[in-house]
Amino acid sequence: MPRNAFYAQSGGVTAVINASAAGVIETARKHRKHIGKVYAGRNGILGALTEDLIDTGKDSPAAIRALKNTPGGAFGSARYKLKSLEKNRREYERLVEVFKAHDIGYFFLNGGNDSADTCLKVSQISQSMGYPLTAVHVPKTVDNDLPITDCCPGFGSVAKYVATSMMEAGLDIESMAKTSTKVFIMEVMGRHAGWITAAMGLAQTQPGIAPHVLLFPEIAFDEEAFLAAVKKNVEKFGYCAVGVSEGLQDKDGKFLAESGLKDAFGHSQLGGVAPRIAELVRGKLGLKHHWAVADYLQRAARHIASKTDLEQSYAVGKAAVEFAVKGHTGVMPTIVRTASKPYRWKIGMAPLTAIANVEKKMPRDFITADGFHITQKCRNYLAPLIAGEAFPPFEAGLPRYVRLKNVAVKKKTPGYTL
Amino acid sequence: MPRNAFYAQSGGVTAVINASAAGVIETARKHRKHIGKVYAGRNGILGALTEDLIDTGKDSPAAIRALKNTPGGAFGSARYKLKSLEKNRREYERLVEVFKAHDIGYFFLNGGNDSADTCLKVSQISQSMGYPLTAVHVPKTVDNDLPITDCCPGFGSVAKYVATSMMEAGLDIESMAKTSTKVFIMEVMGRHAGWITAAMGLAQTQPGIAPHVLLFPEIAFDEEAFLAAVKKNVEKFGYCAVGVSEGLQDKDGKFLAESGLKDAFGHSQLGGVAPRIAELVRGKLGLKHHWAVADYLQRAARHIASKTDLEQSYAVGKAAVEFAVKGHTGVMPTIVRTASKPYRWKIGMAPLTAIANVEKKMPRDFITADGFHITQKCRNYLAPLIAGEAFPPFEAGLPRYVRLKNVAVKKKTPGYTL
Repeated sequence: MPRNAFYAQSGGVTAVINASAAGVIETARKHRKHIGKVYAGRNGILGALTEDLIDTGKDSPAAIRALKNTPGGAFGSARYKLKSLEKNRREYERLVEVFKAHDIGYFFLNGGNDSADTCLKVSQISQSMGYPLTAVHVPKTVDNDLPITDCCPGFGSVAKYVATSMMEAGLDIESMAKTSTKVFIMEVMGRHAGWITAAMGLAQTQPGIAPHVLLFPEIAFDEEAFLAAVKKNVEKFGYCAVGVSEGLQDKDGKFLAESGLKDAFGHSQLGGVAPRIAELVRGKLGLKHHWAVADYLQRAARHIASKTDLEQSYAVGKAAVEFAVKGHTGVMPTIVRTASKPYRWKIGMAPLTAIANVEKKMPRDFITADGFHITQKCRNYLAPLIAGEAFPPFEAGLPRYVRLKNVAVKKKTPGYTL
Repeated sequence: MPRNAFYAQSGGVTAVINASAAGVIETARKHRKHIGKVYAGRNGILGALTEDLIDTGKDSPAAIRALKNTPGGAFGSARYKLKSLEKNRREYERLVEVFKAHDIGYFFLNGGNDSADTCLKVSQISQSMGYPLTAVHVPKTVDNDLPITDCCPGFGSVAKYVATSMMEAGLDIESMAKTSTKVFIMEVMGRHAGWITAAMGLAQTQPGIAPHVLLFPEIAFDEEAFLAAVKKNVEKFGYCAVGVSEGLQDKDGKFLAESGLKDAFGHSQLGGVAPRIAELVRGKLGLKHHWAVADYLQRAARHIASKTDLEQSYAVGKAAVEFAVKGHTGVMPTIVRTASKPYRWKIGMAPLTAIANVEKKMPRDFITADGFHITQKCRNYLAPLIAGEAFPPFEAGLPRYVRLKNVAVKKKTPGYTL
């Protein structure tokens, strides 16, 4: 007898997380013997707790296919971390109540490190609460900081966006520098890991062009060395383009741009390191600057998604279902790089116990000795991840992004308060 | 006898100003009877004053053609405004000296309002200084604020970029709003005119989606009304996406970005109206926010240029040369809209006396009565300008942008100090 599946998007969304959703849903539809309906959680795992389920079967195959072209989280995501069974047994009992009511035998959570932890906890329900459930995590994070997997679905597209944007802005400032802006600073995401910052480095396809200086969260900010580097580049090339991670920290580990707010996971909300760096450049060097903060634009930029990333995002969704119907639980599909030139990859499998809450930072040998740029080794790693274009269809000058019907499944349990 | 031409890029560059350069150079090459060599000014008009000329003939037809795909200013631009003949006769004498030394009979300046003024002054050299010169202005400005012309080359591509980015970021925040960010603020260019801000409004292809609130420089910022609008949208739709012009002013005409406020940590607000608005939203409404400042990214984004804009940019370059060889001077090609549905346009001609230093702001009936969005009339005006895609070629995951050789012409005059 087939059982139903539950799929939820978790944490920050990406330009291609919906491609993973399409991979899950389309593949599930090919395994009718094992999987009945695919329910999506409205607003991620909250949809399970509040029994706010979406019947993905109510959307046409064409609409599900169009998810591959659509950024954001089509079912809504959530920043919500389950506590441990010991600390909040009620939440797990509620999950089992809802799963039981809808005969859910398969659980797919599409997220990053924190979500992998949630998925791991849910996968243990079978043992701890006696409810038979197969739980597979579908990797996704623009931060590219999951361990074991060669890269993280979502990252390649951000990487392509920030490298393209830095290349373009670099041509702009280069034309203006003689009489106007001398320093351009672009801030990108990456709280603890500098992968996105590193990707900007790909724009420097020849010596002397943008970006000249990269500021990684892995390298403590040294104001004096930074200002000297900016000065040197302005003297040599007439201008200096700087890429900076939102997670840049000083030598005491304090974020340069901490806003004081914390999110549901207890992480500080960051933003605004570019203007701080800009102020420094103006104050200490007296140079005219411009600065950009890409924020959501970078991770939502489906219009310039990486084809490689898109294919991998779909593939991990597909593989998750294939793992599940084979009975694997508490695991996650990974990307395995089998060759670099030409780039080849395949899907692997990793246990969630090795993934949850582990953060993969940039290896030191991916960063130049002075701490301000990427090495050839890093370029070799990054280059294939941005390869290929996968433009969405356009209509009247704008991308044609799909909006699903997101029809709610009739509730079968009493209400629940979060 | 053919005479040589001088072409210079002026003011802020765009994603498609090089397409105008290609239009000028390729068309000049078809008028050998009138035009000999085309010299470009290195760093705009400065190249004329310092006799730093680039021989565009040293670059291949393929390289010139590739300018159509390349953002920024290929020859360097300049923010430099000529004073009046009365105030700085020396500058004009120097221009005549350089023009005479290189037999320059045609002058093309590619810029906005200020540049039109410079071009007008140069066009008067024939009369005022007895040096025969034909001067034609090639319109360009992302601000879309030149009078007479229906739109300005460069604007359509920024418009397409900001509308696409707002649409994408809107899908992102919509997925996150339940448990995380409630308000997203995106800052765009436009110091006095709200055209780029208006273009973000195109992303709202159905009621209730992003952007919900637009803040134009033409409408004095009303804090209370703004906060009420944000609150209403968050209550109704779960989130609120805001588009704001860098030139937003309060009722006393003071720029908000220069407000001198301090953030939660007592740090001075470091410029940027988006963080200022974000701080307001958090302080007064207690809502979690994200903000983006697109800065150079928006005007350099050749990867998402508007095909219409690209064609018009090329066409004004071409027309400028055609006007010049027919003997027209002190004029500018304009875009004339001959039909709206379907959109049709042709090239017109306007005297620079009617263009120079005039700024075209948004008509009041392009903005809704409450001041927070665009009207259908505005949509009808904007929609055709973003129509069509013109992706650049890609190589190894990144756009393939051309870099010209920019070979210097041998100097023939003594030095000159600016």
